[in-house]
Amino acid sequence: MIKWQNGTVITPDQTKLPLQEVTIEIQTVEQMAEAIKTLRIRGAPLLGAAAGFGIAIAAYNSKAKTPTQLIDELEAAGILIKHQRPTAVNLFWGVDRVLNKAKSINGTIEELKAAVILEAQLIADEDTAQNHAIGKNGSVLIADGDTILTHCNAGELATVEYGTALGVIRAAWAEGKKIKVIADETRPLLQGARLTAYELKRDGIPITLITDNMAAHVMSKGLVNKVIVGADRIVQDAIFNKIGTYGVAVLAHEHNIPFYVAAPKSTFDLTCRAVDVTIEERDPSEVTHIGCQQTAPNDIDIYNPAFDATPLKYVSAIICETQIYYPKDYPTFRKTKL
Amino acid sequence: MIKWQNGTVITPDQTKLPLQEVTIEIQTVEQMAEAIKTLRIRGAPLLGAAAGFGIAIAAYNSKAKTPTQLIDELEAAGILIKHQRPTAVNLFWGVDRVLNKAKSINGTIEELKAAVILEAQLIADEDTAQNHAIGKNGSVLIADGDTILTHCNAGELATVEYGTALGVIRAAWAEGKKIKVIADETRPLLQGARLTAYELKRDGIPITLITDNMAAHVMSKGLVNKVIVGADRIVQDAIFNKIGTYGVAVLAHEHNIPFYVAAPKSTFDLTCRAVDVTIEERDPSEVTHIGCQQTAPNDIDIYNPAFDATPLKYVSAIICETQIYYPKDYPTFRKTKL
Repeated sequence: MIKWQNGTVITPDQTKLPLQEVTIEIQTVEQMAEAIKTLRIRGAPLLGAAAGFGIAIAAYNSKAKTPTQLIDELEAAGILIKHQRPTAVNLFWGVDRVLNKAKSINGTIEELKAAVILEAQLIADEDTAQNHAIGKNGSVLIADGDTILTHCNAGELATVEYGTALGVIRAAWAEGKKIKVIADETRPLLQGARLTAYELKRDGIPITLITDNMAAHVMSKGLVNKVIVGADRIVQDAIFNKIGTYGVAVLAHEHNIPFYVAAPKSTFDLTCRAVDVTIEERDPSEVTHIGCQQTAPNDIDIYNPAFDATPLKYVSAIICETQIYYPKDYPTFRKTKL
Repeated sequence: MIKWQNGTVITPDQTKLPLQEVTIEIQTVEQMAEAIKTLRIRGAPLLGAAAGFGIAIAAYNSKAKTPTQLIDELEAAGILIKHQRPTAVNLFWGVDRVLNKAKSINGTIEELKAAVILEAQLIADEDTAQNHAIGKNGSVLIADGDTILTHCNAGELATVEYGTALGVIRAAWAEGKKIKVIADETRPLLQGARLTAYELKRDGIPITLITDNMAAHVMSKGLVNKVIVGADRIVQDAIFNKIGTYGVAVLAHEHNIPFYVAAPKSTFDLTCRAVDVTIEERDPSEVTHIGCQQTAPNDIDIYNPAFDATPLKYVSAIICETQIYYPKDYPTFRKTKL
């Protein structure tokens, strides 16, 4: 959920949900960088739109005298934005798309600024359309009566609108399928408890919250028919997504439960393999504290990777805006630039 | 960690750790029941000792005029204590052992009281000895340089002394093996973060804390050589232990990492199969709150099972005080009452 309004980017502060519904107004590139770093803005597709709008803000605020000077400023803004999260490819993609647009314009500074803002808005508009297409494509995989487990938040909050994994759930629900959702709370930052539970409850879709380590148990009890998650980066041989996704995928595989990934093509980065990707490690305090509450002894070693890699062998299908990729299609990922 | 002193049971309040080291003094059966229910006292072997001491407190405080009246009072105390946690077999075992001792005594009220208190103390003393034996038996499975993942807390705090899973780790460490431990934080009640991290840090054994959903990732990165956990109840075909254990076992299996269970024979309940066991479901607030911090929307459906069942096919060995059981031995569980 993100909106451009006369040089201001308006979006919910996702760190405050579900207890407070606070909207933030971002007017500088530094504010955008901070919001991305601290996860006020999070979710792969939303990061793509936010990155584009970050460059748009730089253009909007610029006092550059020449097009070259403006491009230099936009590039500096792009470096700052990309620097905030090393794993999410959408951030790089959003920055580069708008920068490349800017560089392709042969015109006045005002024309250049207008083109940058338009391109950023286009990313947002396309994301909305893509998510509805992902939802429509994916809903064919969902049966009436299914209970679907999801991890982290790949919903409206993680996108410009509608969501990817939750877009599929919304589309199936809108078609009248009586489905239920089980949300992993998704430690350390609890996107499942805070955001997925909030979104689905608000929409009236039945949602049950569990801790991450209950996923195996609910699967063994036959309480889950499908798993759907989003993705932060899809490479030749793996899906990068929120830490914990890989474990859910292995568990689904062991219990013969289909494991689906829903993501737009902007998430694909088929130039890479899993070994090429740097996994962001975040601050230890995310593990030792939950809000005001310290949960571990002082001065203890912590490992806090933000993502993990799920090899494609565990992925039953990848749902995109144009089609569904099945395991028979994965070998082409090594050859095709989509 | 638990101690009997002239009618008072002294033990750490495990809900306050690691930030506060508070000792509680229990002088009535009702206080003991409350401490068990709220997990101030937790851990399968410790519950066995606490159950015994609970009956001892009832005896110590009794104003019964006849042995029959005393036995009636002890039985009422036993019902109250057993009622607090439906899954942990040690609770039933501790109560029944002391009650049976009481019933076997043909003597005065004072003789009966003395026998009850002695039997409860014997349970505690035996637990200490058993844990050291488990440690010694299990340490042969640990190699120099191993990194061992553990779930929940099966340490000194969960027992009268030394620990079961952590007893094996302590024994290997004492033998000079340079090992490291990775502790799952163990949501919802964070026994790994609060108790295992606290114990091992205090003992100087290298410990790294992760959230539960990072276990798959650390295994896939080759950062774990062994898994050791405790058990709350071992039945013919499965190990019942803290929720999340089953998931860890499946993940260990998928990564070809040995998965060991360390538990005294009092944990065995070979009259049952997994389907016969009622899994305790605890208060939803344990999932929606962490201490003072609410982490989920209000009025949301929660599933909060306290335990799960790990089928024996995932268990590489069960380490007891008398021996190690390997998969070839498991079929005898269906025939033998140990």
